[in-house]
Amino acid sequence: MTQMPENVRTELERLMTDYCYAVDGLQDVQPLLDIFTDDAVADFSAIGLPLMNDKGAIKEFFDGVFESMTHHFHTISNFRPESYDGSVAVMTAYVIGMGHAADGNSVEVQVKYRFECVEQDGNWKCRHYTITPMMPLPGSLDTIHGEA
Amino acid sequence: MTQMPENVRTELERLMTDYCYAVDGLQDVQPLLDIFTDDAVADFSAIGLPLMNDKGAIKEFFDGVFESMTHHFHTISNFRPESYDGSVAVMTAYVIGMGHAADGNSVEVQVKYRFECVEQDGNWKCRHYTITPMMPLPGSLDTIHGEA
Amino acid sequence: MTQMPENVRTELERLMTDYCYAVDGLQDVQPLLDIFTDDAVADFSAIGLPLMNDKGAIKEFFDGVFESMTHHFHTISNFRPESYDGSVAVMTAYVIGMGHAADGNSVEVQVKYRFECVEQDGNWKCRHYTITPMMPLPGSLDTIHGEA
Repeated sequence: MTQMPENVRTELERLMTDYCYAVDGLQDVQPLLDIFTDDAVADFSAIGLPLMNDKGAIKEFFDGVFESMTHHFHTISNFRPESYDGSVAVMTAYVIGMGHAADGNSVEVQVKYRFECVEQDGNWKCRHYTITPMMPLPGSLDTIHGEA
Repeated sequence: MTQMPENVRTELERLMTDYCYAVDGLQDVQPLLDIFTDDAVADFSAIGLPLMNDKGAIKEFFDGVFESMTHHFHTISNFRPESYDGSVAVMTAYVIGMGHAADGNSVEVQVKYRFECVEQDGNWKCRHYTITPMMPLPGSLDTIHGEA
Repeated sequence: MTQMPENVRTELERLMTDYCYAVDGLQDVQPLLDIFTDDAVADFSAIGLPLMNDKGAIKEFFDGVFESMTHHFHTISNFRPESYDGSVAVMTAYVIGMGHAADGNSVEVQVKYRFECVEQDGNWKCRHYTITPMMPLPGSLDTIHGEA
């Protein structure tokens, strides 16, 4: 494996941090969508949430989340490069994610994020995003973010 | 907006980390005061705590906190530059703050820190510090750090 | 005190992050052992766990932990150099550690890690590792990781 260049590593760390700010903004979904390529896949199936096969599906999911949640808090840490082949860069990180819904439910998860990224017009974007659980999932996750 | 230079960004990240160590030291308030300019304002009003208009008020508040608390733990993450105009640099970050008081009460908050900083004699210092809540606040915060 | 060079600082931050990934892997203890020198000491006595005087003792302890735990999650933050004398580099960091055991018990701790490191064949390794508690310890820690 080629080692990930320091500047790419930094860009990906900042992209993943921007994602957390975007998810926690809970107002405008556009800054969140800007993190991703147009053909991005977001796979939340390992935590019992949807597998989203394009940006439209990502938008639809987060429109629903932003509608129902009053508070979000996603701290990111433990950044580590997973692979780099000269054009595709993969970074993982740990996230503690918390949410509070308008209906009074709260949730906390401890998960790993995996961002597979490519450069487009000078900006790194995520084309494949996976969440995997690291601790047992609370029953309230599906209640809060799940689809009926 | 001018982009924040990398070295300024690094200095602010380290200043905010030093602040966490200083708050968690719970012995000597001086390392904490050294983080701030003499005319610094610390606004904790969004979490139901005082707005402190000068360093004397900051000292008084933390003298009380250090007196009453037996344990503190403030993890900082999600550093992100907010603005930079060539002399004033603003950085935000996420913090999980925990405390345990001598009277047995415990508290945990999930908040955002905003440090507005200037350089003085070669060191960056905070001249305006704001805490805003990201998750609903626990009732015990006022009990622990509040003023009668 | 000589200031810790930036490249050493970065290496130690990455070594401590690698340690968290290794502890959370819970499959193969070798990546965890690779973090340490052959004569490494790991002192967990401040959190009621063993003081391990060599790599054999470290292996034995983590063999037991990996056997009993089904989930681990260790987020690391607040990296700060403590000292550097040109050959020995000491870094501290904050960790929220969570675990879930096969018997159903769960545990969460808020601690400080201290890594005293030396360079060997071009790689920094830890020769003395200490964990100290920052918040009151849960009673379940000894139940989960303790020795009968």
